[in-house]
Amino acid sequence: MRHLISMKDIGKEEILEILDEARKMEELLNTKRPLRLLEGKILATVFYEPSTRTRLSFETAMKRLGGEVITMTDLKSSSVAKGESLIDTIRVISGYADIIVLRHPSEGAARLASEYSQVPIINAGDGSNQHPTQTLLDLYTIMREIGRIDGIKIAFVGDLKYGRTVHSLVYALSLFDDVEMYFVSPKELKMPEDIIEDLKAKNIKFYEKESLNDLDEDVDVLYVTRIQKERFPDPNEYEKVKGSYKIKKEYVEGKKFIIMHPLPRVDEIDYEVDKLPQAKYFKQSFYGIPVRMAILKKLIEDNER
Amino acid sequence: MRHLISMKDIGKEEILEILDEARKMEELLNTKRPLRLLEGKILATVFYEPSTRTRLSFETAMKRLGGEVITMTDLKSSSVAKGESLIDTIRVISGYADIIVLRHPSEGAARLASEYSQVPIINAGDGSNQHPTQTLLDLYTIMREIGRIDGIKIAFVGDLKYGRTVHSLVYALSLFDDVEMYFVSPKELKMPEDIIEDLKAKNIKFYEKESLNDLDEDVDVLYVTRIQKERFPDPNEYEKVKGSYKIKKEYVEGKKFIIMHPLPRVDEIDYEVDKLPQAKYFKQSFYGIPVRMAILKKLIEDNER
Amino acid sequence: MRHLISMKDIGKEEILEILDEARKMEELLNTKRPLRLLEGKILATVFYEPSTRTRLSFETAMKRLGGEVITMTDLKSSSVAKGESLIDTIRVISGYADIIVLRHPSEGAARLASEYSQVPIINAGDGSNQHPTQTLLDLYTIMREIGRIDGIKIAFVGDLKYGRTVHSLVYALSLFDDVEMYFVSPKELKMPEDIIEDLKAKNIKFYEKESLNDLDEDVDVLYVTRIQKERFPDPNEYEKVKGSYKIKKEYVEGKKFIIMHPLPRVDEIDYEVDKLPQAKYFKQSFYGIPVRMAILKKLIEDNER
Repeated sequence: MRHLISMKDIGKEEILEILDEARKMEELLNTKRPLRLLEGKILATVFYEPSTRTRLSFETAMKRLGGEVITMTDLKSSSVAKGESLIDTIRVISGYADIIVLRHPSEGAARLASEYSQVPIINAGDGSNQHPTQTLLDLYTIMREIGRIDGIKIAFVGDLKYGRTVHSLVYALSLFDDVEMYFVSPKELKMPEDIIEDLKAKNIKFYEKESLNDLDEDVDVLYVTRIQKERFPDPNEYEKVKGSYKIKKEYVEGKKFIIMHPLPRVDEIDYEVDKLPQAKYFKQSFYGIPVRMAILKKLIEDNER
Repeated sequence: MRHLISMKDIGKEEILEILDEARKMEELLNTKRPLRLLEGKILATVFYEPSTRTRLSFETAMKRLGGEVITMTDLKSSSVAKGESLIDTIRVISGYADIIVLRHPSEGAARLASEYSQVPIINAGDGSNQHPTQTLLDLYTIMREIGRIDGIKIAFVGDLKYGRTVHSLVYALSLFDDVEMYFVSPKELKMPEDIIEDLKAKNIKFYEKESLNDLDEDVDVLYVTRIQKERFPDPNEYEKVKGSYKIKKEYVEGKKFIIMHPLPRVDEIDYEVDKLPQAKYFKQSFYGIPVRMAILKKLIEDNER
Repeated sequence: MRHLISMKDIGKEEILEILDEARKMEELLNTKRPLRLLEGKILATVFYEPSTRTRLSFETAMKRLGGEVITMTDLKSSSVAKGESLIDTIRVISGYADIIVLRHPSEGAARLASEYSQVPIINAGDGSNQHPTQTLLDLYTIMREIGRIDGIKIAFVGDLKYGRTVHSLVYALSLFDDVEMYFVSPKELKMPEDIIEDLKAKNIKFYEKESLNDLDEDVDVLYVTRIQKERFPDPNEYEKVKGSYKIKKEYVEGKKFIIMHPLPRVDEIDYEVDKLPQAKYFKQSFYGIPVRMAILKKLIEDNER
């Protein structure tokens, strides 16, 4: 593994290896002792569009490993503004750093960058493609909180049409055995046809629902995403729909599932739910640190071998 | 001590303990040797409004201790812009970092944050409340330069109505014994009535003056603040007034007092004064480093105990 | 050496000493082992105008040495916006950091800052003056790729009138023995008269050319710079001219010279040239790291002696 561009580049074996390494990283974090595993190494975060949360999560992971970070986010004031190409920028930065986390608005940017970089590239989002580290931390959360990925029943709730996080996780889960999926969304925001076709081709059990109330009691994970007003041509339609996908305390109490959310949350989960044992979204966010530590360490070490 | 939100949360004993620890930090700094006291720890600076100087002072303190920093200042491009609440932001960041320095425009924000954070919160200013670390570094400067805080005579000069720094320091000094205070300001910018009442209730000696010339020769500290044009409804009033509170070389020479200023200075102290031995404002700014080192260290250690 | 403000402050001996130290730094970098040569030290990058590339290069150099960085680039939101002078800013920051890299739009700013700073100042550009570390990395590139500086033949191509990089390098090369220079530019962008006079006074061999085709086959270095449209009063004039100074694959193949460029490149060198062995501009950019490491280390150590 030289770069991490897309979940489609890695198989189940490699995923499990990363999750395993992340578990070790989490244990090291728990000791509260300083680590020097990447001492002297430099991560460059190169963000052509802002994403503070993702950037901070990677920076934290690098620093927890004893490594250092340089940050290039103010692109309007950089060489890019003078007309420099992505390729030239990557060539220069890959002469400074040991690894690059790239976020770019154009689909394919990360793949292109990886062809010109001397050091590993991690895709932190390019266009409509989801960044693979989000998917890996989602998988890690399931593994840690449910104890397994094979055989789980997972319900996706909210915007399933535009939610990149959801598409990438659905794909990744399709690599595991006997996963059952429930897709709960307003009809305007249903899972895209190509993903549905792919699941059918792979013989994966899935069920499309329009309401939380139609959901199998037995589900292990409720993966909630934000429904954005802008997605509806008619604002009235949005107002009508949004309430029905809001997760409330009464709905959650006594259920066996855990609740995940890629964050930021706006109002799709009631604040009162936060205190319930089912709420795992802040833990999920924390799990991004050991997962990204595992990935940074693996890629840098593989590259220097 | 789990958080540092307001000077009103800590007593004289605790203040003296922090000043004492700061003295040790200053001595360690003077050795010029690298420290690893907070190696592997991460400070998050979360600034909902900019304050570069305060941010850099905290970052320097953390790095001098061997710790690391992650910075969230570009809030317009972050999850906050997507509608995330302060509480959610704090919950996520407190999963990344070991301590958070928070600056926020709304009064009470730091207290609220502390109720949801897993890690200590330091208030670096919320609304009209002054940040307590400024007050602690002011006290440290007096201790270092005068040798004691009990029994000092201190004159506050300039904008005493809106100056948060002044209000917080006046309160903190009221915890010490036999402190005498002089308030020198234009009548438009006099010390607020509630603070006056509080001092009377505590039987603290204070004197209100309209001119520097009425000041007791014997004063130990001249604490100067900026008079902002915007504070005057009538610009002519400002022009008339400002000259009389400007500190000039001739006024200072031969006096026994030290001059303090929270900085930035615009023109309320003549540049010629900088070379005089009474000028301590740049030293005061430097003292912010050992004081913040002491606070970071204490809070992180107390939290992990 | 207490500060690095201008190439005119240092002689050939000192230049060679820095290049020598840079060579050692490059060898240390190649070991891939973490360095702690500046552990516990802090570099402050104070940029009154943005220059992301320069800032990242210094930050990388500092971090490779085990040192730390604080960054002050968002000046509109800092004390500067409240009316603080450069001198006060430098006084405060020099109480935080062990060395300052300063970029400022006004000529003479770095020199002024050095008079008030307790710690070394490195000029990263002030007004029309080039920053000396760019020149030192250019010299280092020549030394590493050609094996010597004395006696080289170098051609400068492009905008020789406004190119600060070129002016500073021409001056520095004039300190070496038997250097021959070729100046290839449109007549609107010829080398300024004062530099020409200086070269004549020093008896340095130089030749002015209007076309790449008139160039001596035997040249060792082709130093290419960007021709900016804005430099031409008449846009048609620019369109006519620009093609003739573009470096193409056919021109380069089989030649003995190396190609340098301060970057960013826009379209003055064809992308196809990048793969040819003559292309050294990305290597040149990398060489900025060991050169800046050498300078940071030397200045901090000299200051603490």
